[in-house]
Amino acid sequence: MYSFANDYSEGACPEVMDALIRDNNTQCPGYGLDQYCALTARKIRKIVEDSSVDVHLLSAGTPCNVVAISLLRSHEAVISVESGHINVHETGAVEATGHKIIAVKGENGKITPEEIEQVVAAHPDEHMVKPKMVFISNATEFGTIYQKEELKKIYETCQRLGLYLYLDGARLSNALVAIGNDLSLKDICAYTDMFYLGGTKNGAYAGEIFIIRNDELKPDFRYYEKQHCAMLAKGRFLGTQMLALLENNVYLSNARNANIMAQALAYIFKQLDFRMYIESPTNQIFPIIENRLLEKIQNKYVVTIWGPYDENHTIVRFVCSWATKKTTIQEFYSDLVTFLNMPK
Amino acid sequence: MYSFANDYSEGACPEVMDALIRDNNTQCPGYGLDQYCALTARKIRKIVEDSSVDVHLLSAGTPCNVVAISLLRSHEAVISVESGHINVHETGAVEATGHKIIAVKGENGKITPEEIEQVVAAHPDEHMVKPKMVFISNATEFGTIYQKEELKKIYETCQRLGLYLYLDGARLSNALVAIGNDLSLKDICAYTDMFYLGGTKNGAYAGEIFIIRNDELKPDFRYYEKQHCAMLAKGRFLGTQMLALLENNVYLSNARNANIMAQALAYIFKQLDFRMYIESPTNQIFPIIENRLLEKIQNKYVVTIWGPYDENHTIVRFVCSWATKKTTIQEFYSDLVTFLNMPK
Amino acid sequence: MYSFANDYSEGACPEVMDALIRDNNTQCPGYGLDQYCALTARKIRKIVEDSSVDVHLLSAGTPCNVVAISLLRSHEAVISVESGHINVHETGAVEATGHKIIAVKGENGKITPEEIEQVVAAHPDEHMVKPKMVFISNATEFGTIYQKEELKKIYETCQRLGLYLYLDGARLSNALVAIGNDLSLKDICAYTDMFYLGGTKNGAYAGEIFIIRNDELKPDFRYYEKQHCAMLAKGRFLGTQMLALLENNVYLSNARNANIMAQALAYIFKQLDFRMYIESPTNQIFPIIENRLLEKIQNKYVVTIWGPYDENHTIVRFVCSWATKKTTIQEFYSDLVTFLNMPK
Amino acid sequence: MYSFANDYSEGACPEVMDALIRDNNTQCPGYGLDQYCALTARKIRKIVEDSSVDVHLLSAGTPCNVVAISLLRSHEAVISVESGHINVHETGAVEATGHKIIAVKGENGKITPEEIEQVVAAHPDEHMVKPKMVFISNATEFGTIYQKEELKKIYETCQRLGLYLYLDGARLSNALVAIGNDLSLKDICAYTDMFYLGGTKNGAYAGEIFIIRNDELKPDFRYYEKQHCAMLAKGRFLGTQMLALLENNVYLSNARNANIMAQALAYIFKQLDFRMYIESPTNQIFPIIENRLLEKIQNKYVVTIWGPYDENHTIVRFVCSWATKKTTIQEFYSDLVTFLNMPK
Repeated sequence: MYSFANDYSEGACPEVMDALIRDNNTQCPGYGLDQYCALTARKIRKIVEDSSVDVHLLSAGTPCNVVAISLLRSHEAVISVESGHINVHETGAVEATGHKIIAVKGENGKITPEEIEQVVAAHPDEHMVKPKMVFISNATEFGTIYQKEELKKIYETCQRLGLYLYLDGARLSNALVAIGNDLSLKDICAYTDMFYLGGTKNGAYAGEIFIIRNDELKPDFRYYEKQHCAMLAKGRFLGTQMLALLENNVYLSNARNANIMAQALAYIFKQLDFRMYIESPTNQIFPIIENRLLEKIQNKYVVTIWGPYDENHTIVRFVCSWATKKTTIQEFYSDLVTFLNMPK
Repeated sequence: MYSFANDYSEGACPEVMDALIRDNNTQCPGYGLDQYCALTARKIRKIVEDSSVDVHLLSAGTPCNVVAISLLRSHEAVISVESGHINVHETGAVEATGHKIIAVKGENGKITPEEIEQVVAAHPDEHMVKPKMVFISNATEFGTIYQKEELKKIYETCQRLGLYLYLDGARLSNALVAIGNDLSLKDICAYTDMFYLGGTKNGAYAGEIFIIRNDELKPDFRYYEKQHCAMLAKGRFLGTQMLALLENNVYLSNARNANIMAQALAYIFKQLDFRMYIESPTNQIFPIIENRLLEKIQNKYVVTIWGPYDENHTIVRFVCSWATKKTTIQEFYSDLVTFLNMPK
Repeated sequence: MYSFANDYSEGACPEVMDALIRDNNTQCPGYGLDQYCALTARKIRKIVEDSSVDVHLLSAGTPCNVVAISLLRSHEAVISVESGHINVHETGAVEATGHKIIAVKGENGKITPEEIEQVVAAHPDEHMVKPKMVFISNATEFGTIYQKEELKKIYETCQRLGLYLYLDGARLSNALVAIGNDLSLKDICAYTDMFYLGGTKNGAYAGEIFIIRNDELKPDFRYYEKQHCAMLAKGRFLGTQMLALLENNVYLSNARNANIMAQALAYIFKQLDFRMYIESPTNQIFPIIENRLLEKIQNKYVVTIWGPYDENHTIVRFVCSWATKKTTIQEFYSDLVTFLNMPK
Repeated sequence: MYSFANDYSEGACPEVMDALIRDNNTQCPGYGLDQYCALTARKIRKIVEDSSVDVHLLSAGTPCNVVAISLLRSHEAVISVESGHINVHETGAVEATGHKIIAVKGENGKITPEEIEQVVAAHPDEHMVKPKMVFISNATEFGTIYQKEELKKIYETCQRLGLYLYLDGARLSNALVAIGNDLSLKDICAYTDMFYLGGTKNGAYAGEIFIIRNDELKPDFRYYEKQHCAMLAKGRFLGTQMLALLENNVYLSNARNANIMAQALAYIFKQLDFRMYIESPTNQIFPIIENRLLEKIQNKYVVTIWGPYDENHTIVRFVCSWATKKTTIQEFYSDLVTFLNMPK
């Protein structure tokens, strides 16, 4: 069985593994105050061309989101699209910190400035929560990406309405190297108040780089990290890995492999006349598959069932990662052709 | 500079590192549903001689404590000694989940059955929180350990009063191999409702093994894990490490090295007529050091300042780990003698 | 200016006032353990024909909802229609206790069994919250009411799916005496796990009667009340009022007056060819009013703007109460006719 | 049976009752935006001689404390004496909002500047909560009062350390009219950041006046009120009562009666050679009573058992209120003498 179920099926990429071996035997201060975390911060400041940003390394994606939103005061709420990770897939972790998520429809997983304005207009007084933050993901849960003009307009809307803009970058590297992307990490930093650049789904065992540009959000951040279980005692473990991903742009090459392999899969499906549920330029694709064929695929491949499409078809998610090999894609193609030709 | 500041200054022990390299390239299901986590669970059930326990691998110690206490209902409280990690060193993470910690004095970092009874007696009605769990650590924050008879009595007190007993085992291995210990992991399991066996401070990069014996506490545990940021997407990373620690009793030999090195340090201090703030048989020792001498030590060694002893003396914590070498202890002895002979 | 803005503009109804004067000078135990609260409980048990229910008197409606939902464990969530009071008008009080509200569309302010089933089906694992309670209001935020058959089916759906059914009865009396209603208080009790019968919007200064039928939800309820600010030291004040409302069915006659007056207003609007945004048989009505006319009305009457209908029309809410007088309705009719005939 | 158990056994004082009857039939905006609340605010600003303070009327004392402390950010903690109401008698309501209470010993129920300094010194980094508010009560839980010089020093300590000072004034009126008091309401306002003046224990059915002087704490206060169940829909009910207490200084004469009656009780006990557990100049006194005598007293009087004094004696609390009559005290004296002369 080969798994296309997600991009965290494998361990760490070779560069991360080598760095872990290399740095293992030194002594370091704990809890992220080590030299590797400091070097990662320095590197990030260079990439985003902003020496004033705060950089923290957190253990995983959900902690990033929880910590970010816990910076709000207790009556303040966060706006997200319905499909947002915080709204669906984090077991109410945000609400567990006391904050309401105001969900809007969105388009292809992306929020619009109009939706943000409508939410603010619909929350005029103290009988309702006070919208104070907008949560977006890039790439989104559907693998779609924001264009620079879109992000800029959302940021300007937030600025005008007194909202913080926070970007969940679990798959940000995949967005950055996607065909059609016009955003750089520098842009992401300039058009958000804070965001994170994901390591786990890129090529690390664990670890995400959290970047804060807005000065209001910087004080006492480490208290929130600690309180919400986002710190590791051996923070060096995160530092070594994140540094390895940033060096020689490994994070971009890892993402590029994931995207290319997924797009190759998409190409295969389209060549064979499959419809796609949504057009995604990153490392997740969503073909619509006839149920009997799906069964055959599932005998050899692990995939994620996204939901029913109609009575006879299912929306299926295929995800590729730094580890996906060209030969695997080729083998899948052969298998798919075989399955299609098999008598039903 | 050499650091005796804590037991998480180094990376992973060789056995863990080797296992990570060995398992890195397989594919696994995410979030702790992989083969390595399953094997760890099987191994634990064997060691504690109880095939019914639930076993979960969590990312760090604070998440373990947070998840354990979040199993309570909102009006229920946890009893801890004042020096308890949850009461002092977790940035209010427990209160952040809505639960009060009722702190009692304790003796040498350990709680007594009498204190538990007094707390319950002092909380008779609905104007007060309802005590429902007792939190203990073994080894404690002072490096002391519980005797079997002590633990048994605490457990029986809890049983009688309808309280859960939860044991924080961040340094449980150090307790198990301490001179004077009469508890086995099987005993720990039998005389608590749930506990964790720490990996981070033993020899892993990160990871703790959480074991639940009481059936009432088992349902939906993974929801709590996820909600409170205790899960990693690549849960395999925890599985591989914990398995490596359990195999060939590496967790015990790691702890034994830490204890022996720390006790060697204690021996040195005592030979040189230093007083100890507390007698600890594990990997943390607490000599009382004259302030001017401390300055000299701190020029070459990183230590933890535990607090002032009197005007001229300080309580200092030295901690050893799996990585502490005999030669380092010998060098420290030479240095200490030199410092003592230097003109003040 | 006369206010149709809501049903809490006036003070207490005469029967409540008389009872307060009568009972004022006795001594009582505090916090709801007094004789008036006890008599209220006895009365309720008689009305619902169930001597096993627990009865508590709480200070207000939001505390009722907060306490009810705080009975859940931290990963459990409540299902509500989007327009639900807890989802819109309680400043995130439910989320502030850590629980997610899963919002569904609903029909005319009412939830359907199908929606409940869909939510449960869409929350299969520990990466999502666990739906555990259904929240409904009767009358709803739109003044609509549940039929016995509807409530029964919802309750059966909840039973089948292991969900608690909780009914917010801020305006339950208005539902019970509405034309077309076929539910009794006994039915409400039988087809929910717990509910409250509202006093504030009926004729009291403050106070709601909280009734629990499901044994699982009874233990430690007073702890939750106290923790979530739902108790008054002089609980007697709630007891006296609630008892006064129950005696001689004052709660029903108060609600009947409110409904009749509101329906008279509806009749007037319809006679004058206004459209209603929604058909409501209780004490809230929602005429669609041309904006220039609305301005004239607002010079003499306070109303609630529910939202824009189209460019030139607004949905307006008129609410009547125990205190609304027939002469006021008549005067409003005259005014309305005058406004309509005035040159624009 | 006559109750000395507390100061909330009776209903409302005559002036409050008369005002309720007088104001009952007008129409008012809801949720504290009415004329009576506005007049109360105006009156308070005059009394404290500060026209800039914000004034809010809340439903009860626990909600005041919960709302005040919920203004903190999630990692910030409040310092209180161990006997503080928030630490013992509010069912963990403060922790339920996520905040830790750091408890210190105190002296006679009062906190000292030294204790505040020690707490701040002991919380130096992000592994611990960040002390940000000091909670005091005046009168304290032991009925003792702060002197002007004490309060001033505490306030200056808070200012220097960047802490807010919040005063729980459930029995503030009793403190203000106590023999030996040198604080005015103006002083209280000047030497705290916010405080409340209690109505429930003074002579109202329910209601407390919350006063905020520090501008940082003013924004969005009503959101916190609503979220934490401190608002009533018929906020007018609080306005009318608080206004009645302020007019003609009824709050002071109510408190004066309560104090005088309690001090008369204290005089009686002392004349009969009873020891007092603590010297309190307000409306609570704490005689030490021999257990067999206590039984006799309890056959005719309800009192609060404060705790055991020794094997044969109990600390008992007697509380007087606006309603306590001179004849009741006289009768108690006769009874006490009789009980003392009865053969044991």
